[in-house]
Amino acid sequence: MLKHEKNGLFISIEGPDGAGKTTQARLLKTRLENLGVEVFLTREPGGTPVGEEIRKLLLNPEYSEMTVACEVLLYSAARAQLVRQLINPSLKKGRVVISDRYLDSNIVYQGFGGGESPEIIEKINLWAAGGLMPEITFLLDLDAQTGLKRLQEGDKSGKWQGDRVEQKGLDYHCRVRQGYLELAGRSSGRIVIIEAGGNSDAVHEKIWQLTEPLLRKKNLL
Amino acid sequence: MLKHEKNGLFISIEGPDGAGKTTQARLLKTRLENLGVEVFLTREPGGTPVGEEIRKLLLNPEYSEMTVACEVLLYSAARAQLVRQLINPSLKKGRVVISDRYLDSNIVYQGFGGGESPEIIEKINLWAAGGLMPEITFLLDLDAQTGLKRLQEGDKSGKWQGDRVEQKGLDYHCRVRQGYLELAGRSSGRIVIIEAGGNSDAVHEKIWQLTEPLLRKKNLL
Repeated sequence: MLKHEKNGLFISIEGPDGAGKTTQARLLKTRLENLGVEVFLTREPGGTPVGEEIRKLLLNPEYSEMTVACEVLLYSAARAQLVRQLINPSLKKGRVVISDRYLDSNIVYQGFGGGESPEIIEKINLWAAGGLMPEITFLLDLDAQTGLKRLQEGDKSGKWQGDRVEQKGLDYHCRVRQGYLELAGRSSGRIVIIEAGGNSDAVHEKIWQLTEPLLRKKNLL
Repeated sequence: MLKHEKNGLFISIEGPDGAGKTTQARLLKTRLENLGVEVFLTREPGGTPVGEEIRKLLLNPEYSEMTVACEVLLYSAARAQLVRQLINPSLKKGRVVISDRYLDSNIVYQGFGGGESPEIIEKINLWAAGGLMPEITFLLDLDAQTGLKRLQEGDKSGKWQGDRVEQKGLDYHCRVRQGYLELAGRSSGRIVIIEAGGNSDAVHEKIWQLTEPLLRKKNLL
C-alpha cells in the first residue's frame, strides 16, 4: 500500500461521454492557477508515456476482439503507472491533482457496462492505485442519449465514428449511467452528483463552490 | 470463471532466461505434429495482436520507469486476451497447447524478483486467466549465471544489451530461480523440474517421457 499523500488535494471528475468532463477539468485548473495554486491535470487512461501507449491500444477501434477482462487490466496498468509516477509525487508537493476520470470509470464501464464483476474490478484497481482514492469526485450526470448526441454534434468532420468505447450502443451507455448513480449512492461522502445539462459556466460554479472550502481547509488557498 | 476445457492438453514451459524454453517448445511441437497431433504453440506475453502490442511495451528498454505493479497488470492483460481468444478455443478443439511461459513467470519475476506480493499476483492472474492453469508445467532449471551467459553468447552482434527484463542484475535473476524452485515445491503435482544444463535433445527426451502418457490417457495419441 502506498502512503496516501495528504499535502495536496486529489479531485476526480467523472461522468458519461459528452458530459463535459474535459471542459470542467480545464475551467477548474485555470481558476486555481489564476489564484496561484499549483495544479497537475491528468487524464485516464494515459498521463504517462507508458499510459499513453496503453491509451492508444484501449481506444483503437481495430481491436474489437479485446475482451472486457483485458480492458480492465490495461486500465489498471495505466493507473498503477500514473499514481506512482505522477499523482503521488504531485500530492506530496502540495499540488491540486485533477484527474479527468479515475477508478470509478472502470467500475461502471467494464463492470456495470461490460458485465465483469464490479467488486473484482474495484479490488484490482485499488491494488493498482496503491489504495489512493480522490478526496472528492464530481460526477457530471447526463442522460446517455444527450451525451451521445453532444459527442456527435461536437465532431466537425460530419463523419462521426467515435472510438472503441464511444461506438458501443445506447443500452451500454444507459447501464454506465445507472452504475455511476449507484456508486454515488454508495460513496455519498466522496462523490457529488452535478447536473451537467446546463451551460458549462454554471456547472463550473457548482464545482467551485464545493472545491473552495476544501482548499481553504488544507491551507492551499 | 471460464469453463476449463478438458478436451485438449495444456502444457507450459517455464524457466529463467537462457534455459532453452523456446527450443524445447519447438522440439515438442515438431514431435507432436510428426505424430499427427494438432498443436497450438504460443508465447507469453503476446500471442494475440493485442498481446503482441503489450509485449512490445513490456520489453521496450526505453520504459525504464515502468513500475512493477504496471508490469504485473500488463502481463495479466495479455494473458486475459490470449486465454479467451486462442488457448481456450484450441483446447476445446482437442489440440495440445504449448505455452512458452505462463502464469508462474509473473509470480516469480514480478513477485520473487520484483518485490510485489506473489499471492496478489497469483490472484489477479488467475482472474485474468479465468482460472485456467496448465495440466503440466516443465520447469527448465538452470543457475542464473549460466542462463545469462548463454543469452549473451547467443547474440550474434557482439553488442548484447538485452531487453528490459534481461538487463536486470544477477541478484534479480537468482531470486527468480529461487522463486521457481519454491513454486515447484508447492505445486509438485503440476510442475516438474527438469535439469536444463545438458544438451537440448536430452532435455527434450525427458519432456517427451512425461508428455506421452498424458496424451495417451486423453486419447490424443
